[in-house]
Amino acid sequence: MRSVNIGLIGLGTIGRGVYDAIIQNGNMISRRAGVSLSLKGVCDRDPRALKGIDKRHCPVVTDSADELIKDPGIDIIVELIGGLEPAGDIILKSISGGKHVVTANKALLSARWKEIFEAASRKGVFVKFEASVGGGIPVIRSLRESLVANRFDKIYGILNGTTNFILSMMADKGSSFKDALKTAQEKGIAEADPELDVSGKDAAHKLSILSLLGFGVDVPGDSIFTEGITSIGPQDLRNASRWGYSVKLLAIARDSGDGLSLRVHPTLIPSRHLLSGVKGEDNAVFVKGDLVGEALLFGKGAGRKPTASSVMGDIVEIAGHLANTGRPSPVFPKLNYDPDKKLKDMEDLNIPFYLRFTVIDKPGVLAGISSVLSENKISIASVSQEERKSGKQVPVIILTHSSREGDLRKAIQKIDSMDFIKARTVVIRIEE
Amino acid sequence: MRSVNIGLIGLGTIGRGVYDAIIQNGNMISRRAGVSLSLKGVCDRDPRALKGIDKRHCPVVTDSADELIKDPGIDIIVELIGGLEPAGDIILKSISGGKHVVTANKALLSARWKEIFEAASRKGVFVKFEASVGGGIPVIRSLRESLVANRFDKIYGILNGTTNFILSMMADKGSSFKDALKTAQEKGIAEADPELDVSGKDAAHKLSILSLLGFGVDVPGDSIFTEGITSIGPQDLRNASRWGYSVKLLAIARDSGDGLSLRVHPTLIPSRHLLSGVKGEDNAVFVKGDLVGEALLFGKGAGRKPTASSVMGDIVEIAGHLANTGRPSPVFPKLNYDPDKKLKDMEDLNIPFYLRFTVIDKPGVLAGISSVLSENKISIASVSQEERKSGKQVPVIILTHSSREGDLRKAIQKIDSMDFIKARTVVIRIEE
Repeated sequence: MRSVNIGLIGLGTIGRGVYDAIIQNGNMISRRAGVSLSLKGVCDRDPRALKGIDKRHCPVVTDSADELIKDPGIDIIVELIGGLEPAGDIILKSISGGKHVVTANKALLSARWKEIFEAASRKGVFVKFEASVGGGIPVIRSLRESLVANRFDKIYGILNGTTNFILSMMADKGSSFKDALKTAQEKGIAEADPELDVSGKDAAHKLSILSLLGFGVDVPGDSIFTEGITSIGPQDLRNASRWGYSVKLLAIARDSGDGLSLRVHPTLIPSRHLLSGVKGEDNAVFVKGDLVGEALLFGKGAGRKPTASSVMGDIVEIAGHLANTGRPSPVFPKLNYDPDKKLKDMEDLNIPFYLRFTVIDKPGVLAGISSVLSENKISIASVSQEERKSGKQVPVIILTHSSREGDLRKAIQKIDSMDFIKARTVVIRIEE
Repeated sequence: MRSVNIGLIGLGTIGRGVYDAIIQNGNMISRRAGVSLSLKGVCDRDPRALKGIDKRHCPVVTDSADELIKDPGIDIIVELIGGLEPAGDIILKSISGGKHVVTANKALLSARWKEIFEAASRKGVFVKFEASVGGGIPVIRSLRESLVANRFDKIYGILNGTTNFILSMMADKGSSFKDALKTAQEKGIAEADPELDVSGKDAAHKLSILSLLGFGVDVPGDSIFTEGITSIGPQDLRNASRWGYSVKLLAIARDSGDGLSLRVHPTLIPSRHLLSGVKGEDNAVFVKGDLVGEALLFGKGAGRKPTASSVMGDIVEIAGHLANTGRPSPVFPKLNYDPDKKLKDMEDLNIPFYLRFTVIDKPGVLAGISSVLSENKISIASVSQEERKSGKQVPVIILTHSSREGDLRKAIQKIDSMDFIKARTVVIRIEE
């Protein structure tokens, strides 16, 4: 059986998972895939990360990525350090050295698609990235291969486990955002600096990748409209629940015929929707295609083992090609763009909204709010003001009918400048 | 762009879906996959099926499969006639002629795995079968590729849309099996002869395929323990619901360490389980692997377009290889068996049971039943006998604790011979 040699760069959480998987499930993988995986080298800048590496399993242990990239005996470089640099440099050098690449790096891919895949195409090497979206969920391969014949209407889902954990805890236990974040940090679900997750940026990077595969548009993650969950309070989750909704941070790509809308934001979705049942760190991706109809892929969206599962799937696929054909020309090396696909301006989005105003309870407040909404062509579906404390700060909740986002923003800006408004109005979009 | 030529055999429901997809989504597929698909020929024995085929799209229209199999210009034969013969003959002839094969034929694959894949391996051609399990759900590719590094504990799910439609209708509307079947037939969801579906055999064929991929065992579908849904009554769905369960026809492969249990039968599952929410014709597959944890794949399990979606994914994958490498040696041509995997005897299954006895309501009946259960080491978790009509036929429902299947069968056989039992006892297994 041909042996395929792997160089693993980055021995953090996921890197360790991949190391363990190669060593523990290696025999089974060989039997299933007809190819034997051999770990030629591991690299990490931090000597502590290299502790416990068994040289019988892995002859090269180094703090220099170059040592692995330049090793002529290595077939596949697995980049698991994340972030833009030096990951970008490592991947491009590996490609130009003729090595195949497996990565989980959504930030890098979503920022530098074209450069990386054009380089890979020129050199005829694979760049595989199943682990970049949805952890262990096979979403990339499903979109690129199984569902390739579909014209998609929508691809959307819960793509960030940290924020889903926080929102689930706020919904189920009534915790504040701050307390739920603290718990997530204590459990190792949120990082010490949670910005990338709670801001929605991580989900936007992943949506960028799904949008390229599903819709042929190359929109960097950082250019996608993104709203995080920091302004959501437990009262919003309670209010939503009362009206039959749950609140999820959704990443949404929707092609409505008049343009493709890409966005990441907290969203009210009906409680009966399957995504409402996705709790804690789980992720789920819904796709709607003209052939497949609606399909859902659900599973662990992060973590050492699930992410390693996807990295291993990519490694085995490349290894299988190498073992069978020697030097394959990779399938789908190019990511083909759809030149006709237009992006929809966020201002032109037309959906219903949940609005939580913080007002001083005095006569005329509701009239003031509703006249500004009406001036801006926003019609009210329902209003709720449960607490009444004359002269005190109380919430007023309004659900609107479908309205133009641009109009709504104008209205909220005007309302938020009125004297009876005591805090920035919380706006959450609704998807039915 | 290289063009890859397809010969389509069988223009029934799915065949038409594939024909439409190639014609309608062809340009988009070319852009995504970097290869152009060309329909060289279609074949059906029934001239009516060939009506409306546009020769500009498809030059060869024939009732002879051989004409396509022997056409040197055809790269891929798509077999969509189903059943054992002549499908088996068509596939083997295509392989021996050096053609790649795409099929949705679970009955054939589950019966003749070894022969077909050994032939394909010798000739170096692909045999792809994503559409054979779960319609549009990308379960085959996920198991073979994305999740290939996982050691699986369980693969189970709802693999037959017809029976799920019937059970959903019985649960939601209180219909009898007969009425629900009739509705399914009127809607085109069940065939005129529904035997293959309602007996569980269709699900067993699919389970056979999943078991080979996930556990490396080659057990023909017809050798798998299979129980259909014909003895289930609407009262069983009501009773189950009262105890917090729903009833689904599950196909289950579970490796419990002491052996692999393969079985298809109606099953009580907790109402909160995600599979309980899978209604109508939808299918869903749960996998539990040592790396990925629990993952769920959900979608349309049958039908023209969803099944065509999977067939097209396979066609495009092979076409991509052909376009890139000319004559590829297929990846994973062998399906590697696990020689150490032992099958568990159904009699040794140890799970809880739902039992519905039909008894004459008279003193001593419950004592009679429970003493036989007790003699056979079956302990009762709960009993319900709501209707009391002395001297009349009434149901007695018992839920047991985990019991050995062999013991339970012995007990039921004895009980069913007792004079107060008026109908065959309904036994439904429970999965917690």
